[in-house]
Amino acid sequence: MAGRVKEFNEFRSKMNQRILEADNRTIKRFFGVDTLAYEPGALDARTKEMLGLVASMVLRCDDCVSYHVQRCKELGVTDAELHEIFSVALVVGGSIVIPHLRRAVAFLDELNEQRG
Amino acid sequence: MAGRVKEFNEFRSKMNQRILEADNRTIKRFFGVDTLAYEPGALDARTKEMLGLVASMVLRCDDCVSYHVQRCKELGVTDAELHEIFSVALVVGGSIVIPHLRRAVAFLDELNEQRG
Amino acid sequence: MAGRVKEFNEFRSKMNQRILEADNRTIKRFFGVDTLAYEPGALDARTKEMLGLVASMVLRCDDCVSYHVQRCKELGVTDAELHEIFSVALVVGGSIVIPHLRRAVAFLDELNEQRG
Amino acid sequence: MAGRVKEFNEFRSKMNQRILEADNRTIKRFFGVDTLAYEPGALDARTKEMLGLVASMVLRCDDCVSYHVQRCKELGVTDAELHEIFSVALVVGGSIVIPHLRRAVAFLDELNEQRG
Amino acid sequence: MAGRVKEFNEFRSKMNQRILEADNRTIKRFFGVDTLAYEPGALDARTKEMLGLVASMVLRCDDCVSYHVQRCKELGVTDAELHEIFSVALVVGGSIVIPHLRRAVAFLDELNEQRG
Amino acid sequence: MAGRVKEFNEFRSKMNQRILEADNRTIKRFFGVDTLAYEPGALDARTKEMLGLVASMVLRCDDCVSYHVQRCKELGVTDAELHEIFSVALVVGGSIVIPHLRRAVAFLDELNEQRG
Repeated sequence: MAGRVKEFNEFRSKMNQRILEADNRTIKRFFGVDTLAYEPGALDARTKEMLGLVASMVLRCDDCVSYHVQRCKELGVTDAELHEIFSVALVVGGSIVIPHLRRAVAFLDELNEQRG
Repeated sequence: MAGRVKEFNEFRSKMNQRILEADNRTIKRFFGVDTLAYEPGALDARTKEMLGLVASMVLRCDDCVSYHVQRCKELGVTDAELHEIFSVALVVGGSIVIPHLRRAVAFLDELNEQRG
Repeated sequence: MAGRVKEFNEFRSKMNQRILEADNRTIKRFFGVDTLAYEPGALDARTKEMLGLVASMVLRCDDCVSYHVQRCKELGVTDAELHEIFSVALVVGGSIVIPHLRRAVAFLDELNEQRG
Repeated sequence: MAGRVKEFNEFRSKMNQRILEADNRTIKRFFGVDTLAYEPGALDARTKEMLGLVASMVLRCDDCVSYHVQRCKELGVTDAELHEIFSVALVVGGSIVIPHLRRAVAFLDELNEQRG
Repeated sequence: MAGRVKEFNEFRSKMNQRILEADNRTIKRFFGVDTLAYEPGALDARTKEMLGLVASMVLRCDDCVSYHVQRCKELGVTDAELHEIFSVALVVGGSIVIPHLRRAVAFLDELNEQRG
Repeated sequence: MAGRVKEFNEFRSKMNQRILEADNRTIKRFFGVDTLAYEPGALDARTKEMLGLVASMVLRCDDCVSYHVQRCKELGVTDAELHEIFSVALVVGGSIVIPHLRRAVAFLDELNEQRG
């Protein structure tokens, strides 16, 4: 059931570790900035994850979408709110976003089954 | 043989239904506009599907390409015409289109075997 | 001073009118959906404009960025919040976003001078 | 009136010449393939220019759009047909296409005034 | 172990052949230009492959990345150099490049195991 | 003569300063990483600028292209080498790169006149 969620998270963790092991200074510092970007500041963490999600969806990055959907759920974003984020992405990015929307909803369905 | 064609169409139908079940007004109306865009008007349906195909290919959306290749075949676009559409996409979009072209031709081969 | 803001808004209004005069059904309905997407629902209008802004910035659309910066300001988004939205866009979209960030900040400076 | 059309065509011609003067073999052969792509074959030249136009618009390349709008007009594509091409580009590419659509219609207006 | 490398290369060869069999002049000449672009000239082949790799990575084309990683290795580009190329791609293209970086490093790991 | 080069560099410097004045931690650290990415390491600075140039060109960012063309010239990249970088960008990114190539060559011409 939750096969894709588990597989995604395991590959993500394993490869992030492999990337950091290469010990490239620019890459390591980029990863640091990437973490910093989502920490609460003038905007709270929840809003920032929603921003990350819509940005990932218009750029059509399935893995980024999966990651931010997961984070949004952890921070209490509801499914109705997620669909409004999807709707903005769809209108801004057009029908080429639809295949990514399908995979996002399939991923969300898996997450919801896991928690159900 | 026709495994990918069948799998693609089943996932597409199932997830479109899941998306519409969420009952988000913007998404539902977007899907309506997406259908309207390919209805015959000043241009016939066949030309519009060809436009949808080349747009999908330069934007490198495999699922969109598969969908429009299928629709083009249904509307009588020949394989030679499909390859001319691919050639415009390739020149406009560059060599990064090639992996999508490979998958488009593999999908087309499956469609042709099914009908053969 | 506020030359760019005025010029942008006038060209935008004039050409939107010219586009709608062409009376193409799909285009007119798309414009309707585009308006609907930012109306308050599960998320409030302010959050939706912030989503529209970050999406526009990672897609590197200067006019879309100008429009959403303006709307965000109207809905009370502060300059510190705008810069956090910019920071997410920058990290997600990379250094190619920087020229658009420069123009966004120049536009914001003009808006602030107008209101000052 | 026709200032933008003239300016666009003059810059385009002048810089194409400068590019070819650099005598880079790959670039020169690419330009040859770019010409070949729009020559009539299984599809006629008119259809191919329409394909080039929609591809340029979803990729949001104003100069490419201007060029193909001009070529389409020369090959007898009507304004209603052009707007249908624009409508497909808009639905496939989303609202970020709108600023390019505004500039395309402004360019088309100039072309029509010139010929009027 | 080297399953992905082998599978990638076999599908690539097979489909390139299928594409060329369609005998579309534009496509065949584009493939010729694509080969020519990487031949040594003012820049050596090694530098050109590095250029192809960074371009493929910012455009987020996994297959293109796999191909150029392989070619770079054949031309003696070290793993530390590859990671510097990845780091430029990451900074220019942003965090949406990360999933492609993960797959690039996984592919590189396979290549290194094969040769180890 | 060198109007565009001067105007580009002045706007760039002025707005970078304005951006950093906003004192957003993520943005400031991103700018630091962006500088770090081009410092010599496993690859020398010259090669890294060439990588930055080709990446900017396939992503069709005129300002980024202008910046890296300037830096490449400072580091001794010849015009023939620049055109080979352009040729790789053109083949990878397709004909939509051509308008950016025209502006890159116009910018290069200005730089060369300045130094002549």
